[in-house]
Amino acid sequence: MNAMHRATEPAQAARSAQSASSAQSMEQWTWPPRYDETYRPPAGQAHWFPHRETMPAEQRDEAILARIREVMAYAWDHAPFYRRKWEEAGIHPSAIRDLADFEKVPVVRKEELRADQAAHEPFGSYLAVDPSEVKHVNGTSGTTGRPTAFGISERDWRSVANAHARVMWGMGIRETDTVLVASPLSLYWGSWGAYTGAERLGARVFPFGAGTPGQTARTVMWMKQMGVTVFYGTPSYALHLAEVAADEGVDPADLGLRKLFFSGEPGASVPTIRGRIEAAFGAEVYDSGSMAEVSPWMHLGAANHEPGVFAWQDLVYTEVCDPVDHHRVDYGREGTPVYTTLERTSQPMIRLLSNDLTRWEAPSADRGRTYPFLPQGIYGRIDDMFTVRGENVYPSAIDDVVMAAEGYGGEHRIVISRKSTMDTLAVQVEHRGVAESTLDGWARAIEDKLRRALGVGAHVVPVEYKTFDRTEFKARRVIDDRDLLRRLGSGS
Amino acid sequence: MNAMHRATEPAQAARSAQSASSAQSMEQWTWPPRYDETYRPPAGQAHWFPHRETMPAEQRDEAILARIREVMAYAWDHAPFYRRKWEEAGIHPSAIRDLADFEKVPVVRKEELRADQAAHEPFGSYLAVDPSEVKHVNGTSGTTGRPTAFGISERDWRSVANAHARVMWGMGIRETDTVLVASPLSLYWGSWGAYTGAERLGARVFPFGAGTPGQTARTVMWMKQMGVTVFYGTPSYALHLAEVAADEGVDPADLGLRKLFFSGEPGASVPTIRGRIEAAFGAEVYDSGSMAEVSPWMHLGAANHEPGVFAWQDLVYTEVCDPVDHHRVDYGREGTPVYTTLERTSQPMIRLLSNDLTRWEAPSADRGRTYPFLPQGIYGRIDDMFTVRGENVYPSAIDDVVMAAEGYGGEHRIVISRKSTMDTLAVQVEHRGVAESTLDGWARAIEDKLRRALGVGAHVVPVEYKTFDRTEFKARRVIDDRDLLRRLGSGS
Repeated sequence: MNAMHRATEPAQAARSAQSASSAQSMEQWTWPPRYDETYRPPAGQAHWFPHRETMPAEQRDEAILARIREVMAYAWDHAPFYRRKWEEAGIHPSAIRDLADFEKVPVVRKEELRADQAAHEPFGSYLAVDPSEVKHVNGTSGTTGRPTAFGISERDWRSVANAHARVMWGMGIRETDTVLVASPLSLYWGSWGAYTGAERLGARVFPFGAGTPGQTARTVMWMKQMGVTVFYGTPSYALHLAEVAADEGVDPADLGLRKLFFSGEPGASVPTIRGRIEAAFGAEVYDSGSMAEVSPWMHLGAANHEPGVFAWQDLVYTEVCDPVDHHRVDYGREGTPVYTTLERTSQPMIRLLSNDLTRWEAPSADRGRTYPFLPQGIYGRIDDMFTVRGENVYPSAIDDVVMAAEGYGGEHRIVISRKSTMDTLAVQVEHRGVAESTLDGWARAIEDKLRRALGVGAHVVPVEYKTFDRTEFKARRVIDDRDLLRRLGSGS
Repeated sequence: MNAMHRATEPAQAARSAQSASSAQSMEQWTWPPRYDETYRPPAGQAHWFPHRETMPAEQRDEAILARIREVMAYAWDHAPFYRRKWEEAGIHPSAIRDLADFEKVPVVRKEELRADQAAHEPFGSYLAVDPSEVKHVNGTSGTTGRPTAFGISERDWRSVANAHARVMWGMGIRETDTVLVASPLSLYWGSWGAYTGAERLGARVFPFGAGTPGQTARTVMWMKQMGVTVFYGTPSYALHLAEVAADEGVDPADLGLRKLFFSGEPGASVPTIRGRIEAAFGAEVYDSGSMAEVSPWMHLGAANHEPGVFAWQDLVYTEVCDPVDHHRVDYGREGTPVYTTLERTSQPMIRLLSNDLTRWEAPSADRGRTYPFLPQGIYGRIDDMFTVRGENVYPSAIDDVVMAAEGYGGEHRIVISRKSTMDTLAVQVEHRGVAESTLDGWARAIEDKLRRALGVGAHVVPVEYKTFDRTEFKARRVIDDRDLLRRLGSGS
């Protein structure tokens, strides 16, 4: 089945006959969502849905406002969780007259979802379809505490696949690509989203997964044998894979990758991590991803080979907000994203507070898509931030400095301790190929750069290459010795 | 989307208007395969395709002969591997005038596929579609040697999903079930087949997978939380899961399973293993599966709650053959299955020699389906068979005896050694709850039963509970000390 071009020309002709300025003309944007599963743009076309992606942002905002009202009315009618919450706040969907009004809708916290699900098993009272319509189960992949289950209708599963195909198309992935899914295929929606997106896009999909003992060396062998051209996984795992390939005598740059795209942790928008991946594989790097709860999680996704992600507002409406009052901050400012799904019917998320951190910029037609832009992607979580002697420090800022050092060995650990009443920050950094006699100077040079980047001093301790375990999923590098319980809990 | 009943009545009305005796009336049986993806029988109906499953076997054989000729003509035209092989043997598809003629077609050995794939990367010259049509990659999951890749077109992927939905329907799995896929989701087609089949059937699918550290305890927790009603995995893993559940203070019978279905290794048709699983979970057990190469691998599948599997001949034509001359043995006899896919277009398998072992019985309308029946399923591989003092011994026969013993601790190992010129067979058996003073008698009683079952004596050595590792996939219990290289290679 060569499906390229099929049904494309008539659809486009029909579209151009409509008014490009009306919200109705947005390609396949309906409530509830309905997608033509046979649609695929011509391979040479940059945008999956050109109008939807390039229309003036203000026009899109009007359409988004209308959609938000529909989504809220739907949730009011079908999801007791939302009705209860909004009644308590004295807000009715009909009261939302503009996007500023929407900022008054109280945010949803992840703890609320977890508690609601415990009280209304298994999918919570924010399930807005009959339980018999739930056809796919995913969930949070945390290893402690009560997991949160995602109950997904067939309609939502397909909407997510369609949305992901569209964003991956924007990354330049095409039918002729072979996409390796190299994250665990289990609860984690990251892997399934990449899988269904690649399938919907018409690429060849190779869901090899990750996380079982010895799998990484086999991944290298299969990548070579299968001619994989696109990698999906975490940045940490891509770096680990490059190391394993080298150990197996394979130059990662010879694996033939064209592109790698990432989610699950910061990194693909962190210049040094990004640079290391590009250099190792000789391929383009694309960042993507927000939270599994708000799938299509690729609604934050790069469409150009550069750091940063677009907020594909017609998939999930993203507001970068003040972490305290949950109102939008101005473009140019830092805040925490608050997400509202615009195409989900089974477990709609309406103003879900991420507690992640980002900075956003105003839409600009110059970027090729008229979406707000997050130039550093998601660079941390408010929870991950720690304070050392009054300065707020994000682990990703340390990663950025340390991994840029010549002679960096591939892993490091960040150790926060308290000596009497004074917090100290130490970074244990693997070195490789650094002469013993110059190690001291090497460490001092990194310390200088850290002081400039963080505003506080950090002690750099060189350690041998391969001192630390590599991860096949998300990196956990921070050891906070100030909290004994936390240290015991993490097994460090 | 409640799809139950949709499109069913009109389709059935149309069918009953046709002659039930003609091959054309077989529900959705075409070459190349075409399925109505919206079709689903009424929940109360036992058969997915009643006519196809209950027609007189001779009539079906006529249709199969016609299909074999089509499949062979297709392979002759599109797959150089087959044309070369058949030209060498002096056989042309047009020469096949009855199913006895078909027995003259030379068998394909797995080594041939591997060698052909090495010479014609990546999918071999038995790929019968343009490589651009390959949209899914699976493969053999062995950890040593060159893996064999499965290159699957979208058409074949859907045909397999449709076939699996049909066989799972025969097991009594319905839209209202939640199906846990508890085998690794990576190369292994077993997991993907169960996944796509459950999805196509309209059940709720929970692809949790298996094989990552600590996953089994989390599986227990999620099964409870999600109300899983159907389990898919290996028999070994189900038993391991039951043990882990008990360790976690959960009675496996309280997990709420209705059914478990299995593939990947013998067990679900081995009475004691089957009995242990039924007893632990208080649920029905169904056997299924042949080889990934001949997917839809569920073409051997139980449709009643009893040991044994049907050979769903209209999906994959199975001949149980003499292992030497590859001609069919009479019904009632033991032999090795030779498989021919009747719906695969991307990598058709035509007379693939399995080297597995089974015994088959003639079709009988009394069983509810007019397919040949394999009352003990696949009970071993010719390669797994070993000879001790002139007697052929299959590991599954030892498993059957040992696992039936009161006080069996959950695992055992089979050790074959040579003392001077004499082969000896020892079985190390974990015991649990057996009083120390009675252990000797316990071991002697198992030895007696083994001698009767195998025809040779075996030495039973009781060992402590949890001496041996549990597997999350397929059990490997045989240690052959006679072959030092093999012992070193397997790390035992």
